Amino acid sequence: MKKTIQKLTVYATLVFGIYHVEAQQTTVIEDFKPSSKNQPQQDYPMVNSQGYARFKIVSPAADSVRVSLGLGGKGGTKLAKAEDGTWMGTTEGPMDEGFHYYNVKIDGGKFSDPGAMNYYGSTRWESGIEIPAHDQDFYALKNVPHGHVQQVLFPSPSTGTSRRAFVYTPPGYTKNTDKKYSVLYLQHGWGEDETAWMNQGHANLIMDNLIAEGKIEPFIIVNTYGMTNEIKWGGMKDFRIEPFQTVLVDELIPYVDANFRTLATKDKRAMAGLSMGGMETKTITLNKPNVFSYYGLLSGGIYLPEEIKDKSQVKMIFLSSGSKEKPERILDAASKLKEAGFKVTTYVSDNTGHEFQTWRRSLKELAPLLFK
Amino acid sequence: MKKTIQKLTVYATLVFGIYHVEAQQTTVIEDFKPSSKNQPQQDYPMVNSQGYARFKIVSPAADSVRVSLGLGGKGGTKLAKAEDGTWMGTTEGPMDEGFHYYNVKIDGGKFSDPGAMNYYGSTRWESGIEIPAHDQDFYALKNVPHGHVQQVLFPSPSTGTSRRAFVYTPPGYTKNTDKKYSVLYLQHGWGEDETAWMNQGHANLIMDNLIAEGKIEPFIIVNTYGMTNEIKWGGMKDFRIEPFQTVLVDELIPYVDANFRTLATKDKRAMAGLSMGGMETKTITLNKPNVFSYYGLLSGGIYLPEEIKDKSQVKMIFLSSGSKEKPERILDAASKLKEAGFKVTTYVSDNTGHEFQTWRRSLKELAPLLFK
Repeated sequence: MKKTIQKLTVYATLVFGIYHVEAQQTTVIEDFKPSSKNQPQQDYPMVNSQGYARFKIVSPAADSVRVSLGLGGKGGTKLAKAEDGTWMGTTEGPMDEGFHYYNVKIDGGKFSDPGAMNYYGSTRWESGIEIPAHDQDFYALKNVPHGHVQQVLFPSPSTGTSRRAFVYTPPGYTKNTDKKYSVLYLQHGWGEDETAWMNQGHANLIMDNLIAEGKIEPFIIVNTYGMTNEIKWGGMKDFRIEPFQTVLVDELIPYVDANFRTLATKDKRAMAGLSMGGMETKTITLNKPNVFSYYGLLSGGIYLPEEIKDKSQVKMIFLSSGSKEKPERILDAASKLKEAGFKVTTYVSDNTGHEFQTWRRSLKELAPLLFK
Repeated sequence: MKKTIQKLTVYATLVFGIYHVEAQQTTVIEDFKPSSKNQPQQDYPMVNSQGYARFKIVSPAADSVRVSLGLGGKGGTKLAKAEDGTWMGTTEGPMDEGFHYYNVKIDGGKFSDPGAMNYYGSTRWESGIEIPAHDQDFYALKNVPHGHVQQVLFPSPSTGTSRRAFVYTPPGYTKNTDKKYSVLYLQHGWGEDETAWMNQGHANLIMDNLIAEGKIEPFIIVNTYGMTNEIKWGGMKDFRIEPFQTVLVDELIPYVDANFRTLATKDKRAMAGLSMGGMETKTITLNKPNVFSYYGLLSGGIYLPEEIKDKSQVKMIFLSSGSKEKPERILDAASKLKEAGFKVTTYVSDNTGHEFQTWRRSLKELAPLLFK
């Protein structure tokens, strides 16, 4: 197992390094296996040890089948009709490690791959595929004590309904009934929803593993839907933070504090978010300096020192990004914040972009820094 | 609102009654609305007040698009190309009230409808549609206290992994920390999984509403995956109960009793299941007479008096079925069981078949009978 992982790293480095120069000469190794995100009993899509993905779609009478995944700017991977009447194709190059959303175009219409599980992204349930990462062990399902992920429906007078949140309670929560826990409010990105961090992010498994290794003190994580006023692609200018801020601060936090054994003080409360969830985190932590002490922006922007009115309110700022997302921006912001006297930690995820592998790793780095 | 529901009932009765004679003359009322099971911001599929469903699929270059739903034996509903290049079609007649799985055939391949949410059935994630039922109020999301649905990963030495279960804890569970609760182990049907009862069955909302109305004492519900040895369609003869029985009785029940505030005695433990889950319930309750006191088979077979060795072990048997599934079978079995001195309750769901509306109603009828 260790050997396979080492091999994978070597190939990935090689292949990523040379791709643009000699893509045509790369030999595709025929060790394809079903993606770990497949539906039960489904062989396709498959992935190989180099990070190539291979797709197979049954649609015998179709004229054209195309998968949205593949190399940037080339419109994805065009499948070809195989001898058995199915449509098959392999990405032209290896993909980044980790999780990717995708869809399949059949004769011009956009569908999910019937072989893959579905994950909510881009305001729709998309197909998901997993390119095994060299560091996938930290979010693997292991034989360790597991926390619970609770779906709660909390009353939201401001939106006139009961809203859904997921609450991760760490292992031991059900038995140590005197213990109280700190809470991280953790937001998804644009077009995703409150299922993202547990489903594609494996936040619960990341926490279970960190706790089992004694690397963090157990805490609670809460995810809820942040696009409280629905916005479509391109409609970001219409987004207003107030509806979500009200739901989060005036409705969800009091519900969590009343129904879970939380340490219900500012010092024991953090907020973080990925991408658009980072933008929300920034806005809400600045608007409500008395609610959270730890701030995390995961591929989700920066704070400028002058934006934070009272330095003493902030215990720690975490800024992260994939190495393919211009990380200079967060590194530069961190310098300025440090100069101004803030405690800042940055993290840059190697060889990943604006995708969940960056955010899984970011959570793993962020968790040990919280609630100190 | 009340008027609409009355109208719906009248139409449904009329239309169901006369369908076979004069289907062609039925006037389709143009009051179509998006199905409540649609993905966010999706208008199609739609349903009207008579129970017709209308589909719209974007696949401009396809040659043939067909939806699996429609009238029995006719292969579903064939869509036709509309003026705007989309494919549209309406079921030839009204559908039964409640939830239906379906899929879309595009040029011979089977896909999910991109407009609808997905539900695990037939061993794959299928599309779901909801025909509003005259009695939908009992599983509606209301402004009442809501229980939590907890995803747990419990250790399963017998299968060498951590297995998933969902545990419904009723409203009040988090606050009344001295109170202990009875438990119903409730199984899905063939090709479904542990998500079925909460997602498409709305078991949590049924419970929340019954509790809010004071109709039942709160109890816990547990769902886990019952097809422990994977079987494909037509492979039922290969199904063996032992692997699942071990997971349920030797692994899950001890985990639930250790991690939740349960009344951990046979008298306060029930098992029920729908369809294949009924078969499992029957086999396991007979194999393990010391574990459960209340037995429920929902469209899932019958008990014969001679199959139950020790009558004193059984507190109550519940047998239910849709009116379209030959309910005489359960009524006949109930007579025999009653003659033999068992406490038996039967329930027949009006105008429904082997589908979730039958089982939602069955749970509503079963819940008040348990743990008396």
